[in-house]
Amino acid sequence: MALSAAAVGGDTQSTGVCAPRGFVAGAAAADIRGHGDDGRLDVAIVRSERPCQAAGVFTRNRVKAAPVVISQLTLRQGRVQAVLLNSGNANACTGAQGFRDALQMIKAAGDACDLDPAQVLVCSTGVIGRPMPMSQVVAGVRGAVAAMRPGGGDDLARAIMTTDTVPKQAVRRIEIEGRTVVVGGVAKGSGMIHPDMATLLALVTTDALVADGVLGPLLRRVTDQTFNCVTVDGDTSTNDTLLLLANGAAGGDPVTAGSAGLAALETAVLEVCDDLAEMIAADGEGATRHFRVEVRGAVDVVQARLAARTVAGSPLVKTAIHGRDPNWGRIVAAVGRSGAEFVLDRCRVTIGGVTVFDAGAPVDADLDAVRRIFGADRVDLDVDLGAGEASGHAWGCDLSDGYVRINADYTT
Amino acid sequence: MALSAAAVGGDTQSTGVCAPRGFVAGAAAADIRGHGDDGRLDVAIVRSERPCQAAGVFTRNRVKAAPVVISQLTLRQGRVQAVLLNSGNANACTGAQGFRDALQMIKAAGDACDLDPAQVLVCSTGVIGRPMPMSQVVAGVRGAVAAMRPGGGDDLARAIMTTDTVPKQAVRRIEIEGRTVVVGGVAKGSGMIHPDMATLLALVTTDALVADGVLGPLLRRVTDQTFNCVTVDGDTSTNDTLLLLANGAAGGDPVTAGSAGLAALETAVLEVCDDLAEMIAADGEGATRHFRVEVRGAVDVVQARLAARTVAGSPLVKTAIHGRDPNWGRIVAAVGRSGAEFVLDRCRVTIGGVTVFDAGAPVDADLDAVRRIFGADRVDLDVDLGAGEASGHAWGCDLSDGYVRINADYTT
Repeated sequence: MALSAAAVGGDTQSTGVCAPRGFVAGAAAADIRGHGDDGRLDVAIVRSERPCQAAGVFTRNRVKAAPVVISQLTLRQGRVQAVLLNSGNANACTGAQGFRDALQMIKAAGDACDLDPAQVLVCSTGVIGRPMPMSQVVAGVRGAVAAMRPGGGDDLARAIMTTDTVPKQAVRRIEIEGRTVVVGGVAKGSGMIHPDMATLLALVTTDALVADGVLGPLLRRVTDQTFNCVTVDGDTSTNDTLLLLANGAAGGDPVTAGSAGLAALETAVLEVCDDLAEMIAADGEGATRHFRVEVRGAVDVVQARLAARTVAGSPLVKTAIHGRDPNWGRIVAAVGRSGAEFVLDRCRVTIGGVTVFDAGAPVDADLDAVRRIFGADRVDLDVDLGAGEASGHAWGCDLSDGYVRINADYTT
Repeated sequence: MALSAAAVGGDTQSTGVCAPRGFVAGAAAADIRGHGDDGRLDVAIVRSERPCQAAGVFTRNRVKAAPVVISQLTLRQGRVQAVLLNSGNANACTGAQGFRDALQMIKAAGDACDLDPAQVLVCSTGVIGRPMPMSQVVAGVRGAVAAMRPGGGDDLARAIMTTDTVPKQAVRRIEIEGRTVVVGGVAKGSGMIHPDMATLLALVTTDALVADGVLGPLLRRVTDQTFNCVTVDGDTSTNDTLLLLANGAAGGDPVTAGSAGLAALETAVLEVCDDLAEMIAADGEGATRHFRVEVRGAVDVVQARLAARTVAGSPLVKTAIHGRDPNWGRIVAAVGRSGAEFVLDRCRVTIGGVTVFDAGAPVDADLDAVRRIFGADRVDLDVDLGAGEASGHAWGCDLSDGYVRINADYTT
């Protein structure tokens, strides 16, 4: 769909959180990692011109970082207008001091933006168990606020990267009752990526005007089909946070539950999040390629996703794909331990269109073709459980010695 | 305890399955891997001079290899007298042909040993989804039977190795009512190692005379405390099998449920299996060191083991230990996602005696000391959940680029 800048509003050059109307973002280099003044962006803020409806989905890890707890409480209190983010330090396992630091961060952001701190959400990612270097952080907050501009989404996308090798942004433009509505998103991923949920930090903005109470359920449905379908290493972070902000700048009547407008908005949010989910898998720590596991023939969608995630998370499947080794038995073994119901003599495994296992027995397949398929940037695995009608998918990435190198000396 | 050869019986030189009286073993090189005649042992058999009480614990993977299904059925029918094992091919995901092949293997072993095939158990380990090369296998069975001798346990231990770098055997000698009783064990591990259960193949023999019905419960209790506490890569095999055979050659009265003799026997079996479990962790694929996670302060033993296994299985913990990176926050994060109850402000993490996290906050610990501790062959992690009184442990190993190299080209 071709849209003129005038029709779209917002920053039409941006593919991220500043693409919807009425959002500005900025970032600053605060040397949170203590590497000296290398200019790496590590603090960012996005601010809406008006208060937003907001929803969040957070880590299910019982150890929640201070910013996660604070942001969960903030969301319960009503509308928000800004989100502060930093990389380099997760402010997790930091005791009472961590809570004081998270509160000081939102106070600094509120002061600099002229907002009530109760309207500021905060997200942190990075090393666990280290105190926040607060003098640098506060200076970084002020710098990020001073740098805010309509095209600042790209800087924000870079500022939240940890071991990510590329920034991750996505955008969709739709029409709701004749008005253009924009959805933009940003994420950082790479390691400690596993349901539930799958990303350290993701933020989706939209200029849709929505009725009360619809964003939360929408975001939970989308999460189950996107970020909860990504696994990099099976470790669930203490800091996982997905936020959705809707500032209503598109105007019109509020989008209400059950409406066609809400369905269109949900599809756009889903597509933005699915794009980001695939980008996270593709940029998994040390990954040289990513893969999608489609499971069909399951008893229900929960079991379909369970089987898909188990295959996507299997170190033996991941290393086989890394080594272009057509060792498909590992896929069947992973399905077998997933707990999902299946009927072995109706089970089928297909790799990039080549069926290797059918009706419980090996197929005399072209394994050289499978080797070639495993050499592509993206690999598609398809597993039919033969037990029902439901489907689900998962995104994964190969396991390389690069993963080991990255994680063997993260803090040192 | 010093015992003379006369008092002990069996093969006092053997540390494995031939150490108890009345067991012989043999192995042969059958080139099951198709690498040409490199002389690598890959078929083995252990035979008792008399019928044995027997018990088994098998994989909970829903995809069970043909030999697993056949051996489970065999065990239900009564006493057994021999166990046939092979490496190089798992006979898993091989359809109906796999069952015919497993049955032909036990028939060949029975014929060669002059036993009813219904008294022969069979275990296979190796690549999944390939038909068994039956002419080589049958020749190997005959060769292994022809090679049987009292000192053949060492050959058997080598014949079942896949990516193992060392054979794994253990032995204990105890006294029950004035008679020496010997327990010997062998295992192979390395990859696809995770509860439940944790080892591809393990076989424990004893010359104890036991009453009906006691071995099965004993073996399940022991498994929960040993092999189910090992994790190498989170993948559960299609072929996991642990067998316990008691031939009664020690004589005396049968050991009955609730007796002091049974308690002594269980302790000996537990110690043999714990030795083997630690050896499996230490020889995990690509491992350069292994570690024990002791979890205390849990609500119950199930949660203690769950938390311990989650830490032991975390790729981020495993890579941190590999890289001697004192990034203890990953231990807390793994506990947090394990699902075990804990009280953060009573939680404590100690690494080799150095407390790094206490009462929910970081301790100003000597991280250089932690680096040195992570450099040892064995590392001890201790986590107090602060929620109760129960304890449990798990064995793990570091994750190195060697794991990736081994598994990226297993079949090719």
